[in-house]
Amino acid sequence: MIGVDWGTSSFRAFRLTPGGIVRDRRAAPRGILAIEGGHFAEELLRQTGDWIADGETRILLAGMIGSRQGWQEAPYLACPAGAPEIAAALVPVPFDGADVLLVPGLTHTDADGTPEVMRGEETQLVGVLAEIGAEGIACLPGSHSKWARIEAGRIESFSTYLSGEAFAALRGHTILGRMMKDGPTDPAAFDRGLARAENPGHLLHHLFGVRTLGLFGKLAETESASYLSGLLIGHEVRAALPPGGGAVHLIGSAPLCALYARAVEASGAVAFIHDEDAAARGLARIGKDAPWSI
Amino acid sequence: MIGVDWGTSSFRAFRLTPGGIVRDRRAAPRGILAIEGGHFAEELLRQTGDWIADGETRILLAGMIGSRQGWQEAPYLACPAGAPEIAAALVPVPFDGADVLLVPGLTHTDADGTPEVMRGEETQLVGVLAEIGAEGIACLPGSHSKWARIEAGRIESFSTYLSGEAFAALRGHTILGRMMKDGPTDPAAFDRGLARAENPGHLLHHLFGVRTLGLFGKLAETESASYLSGLLIGHEVRAALPPGGGAVHLIGSAPLCALYARAVEASGAVAFIHDEDAAARGLARIGKDAPWSI
Repeated sequence: MIGVDWGTSSFRAFRLTPGGIVRDRRAAPRGILAIEGGHFAEELLRQTGDWIADGETRILLAGMIGSRQGWQEAPYLACPAGAPEIAAALVPVPFDGADVLLVPGLTHTDADGTPEVMRGEETQLVGVLAEIGAEGIACLPGSHSKWARIEAGRIESFSTYLSGEAFAALRGHTILGRMMKDGPTDPAAFDRGLARAENPGHLLHHLFGVRTLGLFGKLAETESASYLSGLLIGHEVRAALPPGGGAVHLIGSAPLCALYARAVEASGAVAFIHDEDAAARGLARIGKDAPWSI
Repeated sequence: MIGVDWGTSSFRAFRLTPGGIVRDRRAAPRGILAIEGGHFAEELLRQTGDWIADGETRILLAGMIGSRQGWQEAPYLACPAGAPEIAAALVPVPFDGADVLLVPGLTHTDADGTPEVMRGEETQLVGVLAEIGAEGIACLPGSHSKWARIEAGRIESFSTYLSGEAFAALRGHTILGRMMKDGPTDPAAFDRGLARAENPGHLLHHLFGVRTLGLFGKLAETESASYLSGLLIGHEVRAALPPGGGAVHLIGSAPLCALYARAVEASGAVAFIHDEDAAARGLARIGKDAPWSI
C-alpha cells in the first residue's frame, strides 16, 4: 500500500510492504496550502503515479489533507481510539485507479468542556503504540505540541501546548527579540531557561527575566533565544508531565526531540526518542485494519 | 514645582502647588523616542517655558527620560525604597534657568538572582503610598505589568509580568489572531477567559483552547480577543496575588484597571482603582524631599 503524511506545508509518501516496511519514499514541499484549486487528486497522481502503475491499489492519507481546508473533511473521532477505531472511521475519496482513504483526526474534551484536536499526530502515535505498550505518555513537540496519554493500547486523551508558536511570536514581535542574535542552540543557556522554569513563578513573569538578564549583562545576545526556548519547553514539560515522572515517548524532528529530552530528564523522567518514520508505521498499522474495497 | 512623567511615547507635565495640588497640566506625544538628536532640554523648555517664565525654578522628571536612551542615565536604586530614598538618589542634569532632577528607576533581585526593573512606576507608586498605608499590594497593569509589595510605607519588592506584550504578540502573530474580530471588550467572554485561568492547566495549554473553542463554534470571532485577554489577565492575577487575597491597589488607565479589578475580584480579593494622576502626586511627594539647589 501507499501511505501519505500530507500536512499544511509538506507531502511525504511511503511505499509500504504488507508488513509495514518502507520500500520506497518521497517528499515534496507540496502541502495542502501549496495546492491550488483543490487539485489534490492530480497532485497525488503526480507524486505516486509510478507506484500505482507498478501495482499499488491502496492509498491511505493522513494529516491536514482530511481537514476542511484539504481534499475532503474526515470528521474528528472522539478518544479513546487506537488503530481499529481509526480504521473504522476512515473516509473514502473518489480517485481513479486506486482506493483512497482519509484518516480522521482525533478530538477529546477537557474536564471544563474545552475541546482538543489533532490531525496527523494520531497516525504517528499509532506508529509507536506497539513500542509504548499498554500504558504510557507520548509527546509530539512542535508549534502546537501534543501530549497524549496511552491506556490499554489506545490514545485515551491528549492536551495541546502552544509553546512553539508562542516562542516564534515572542521572539519575533516583543521587546525580548530585540536582544537576540540568531545562531545554534546554546545548551548552557537552554539549561538556564529550564532551571528558571523549575522556579514556582509564572511564565508571564519569567518572560520578563529574558529582558532584565540581558539588560544587566547576565545573558548574551547569542544566548537569549536558547534561554527563552528552555523557559518555554521547561514550562511545558513541567506542566504536562504527570506526577511521578515515568517515561515520555518523544516523536518528531531529531533536534527538537533532543531539546525536549533534555527538559524531560531535567524534570526527573526518562525520555525515549522515536524517529519521524512513526508516521509510516502508523499508516501501515491503520491500513491493516482498513475496509479496503480493492 | 514642575513635575514631568516623560516616558517612551508620551510627555505629561504638571504644575504643582507646594501641597501637591495640580494647578495646571499639559500632555504631548513627545516621548523620548520622538526627540531627535538628544534635544531634551529644548523640548522641556518648549513644553514648560511659560511656567518657568512665571517663576517655577524646580523641575522633577520621572520615567524613561532617566534611562540610557533618555537625557542622562539615573542608575537604578535597589529596593526597599520610599520617597526619602528616591529623593536622595535624584540625578541633576544641566539646564538654564531651573533646577532639573531625574528620578531613578528601582531594581530588585529575585530569590534565584534574576533582576527586576521599573522606571516611572516607582513615582506612581509613591503617589499612592499614603492611601495604601504601611502595607499592601499594588499593581500597575500594562505591556509589562508591575506588582509591588508595600511594607513599612516603602516599595519592598516587585515582579513584572509580560502579559500586555504577550497578548499583542499572540493576537497579532499566531493562529489565534486569525479568528479574532476587533471590537470593544466583551465582558462575558472576558469572564470565560478568567474562569479558564482558574483551571489548573498551564497557560501554554489554555492558549490552544482559544483556537479549538473557535473551531467548534463555542467562541465567536467577536468574543475571541476578550477571552484571550481574560485568560492572560486571569493567569497573571492568580500568580501575582499573595495567598489569602486581601486588597490590590490598581494604578493606570481606567479601562485596563477595570479589567484587572474584575480579575482581582474573581480571585476573591478586593480591588481599589487609583487614577493616572498618581504620577503627579508621586512627583510632588518626591519633590518635597529633593535636594534642590535653588
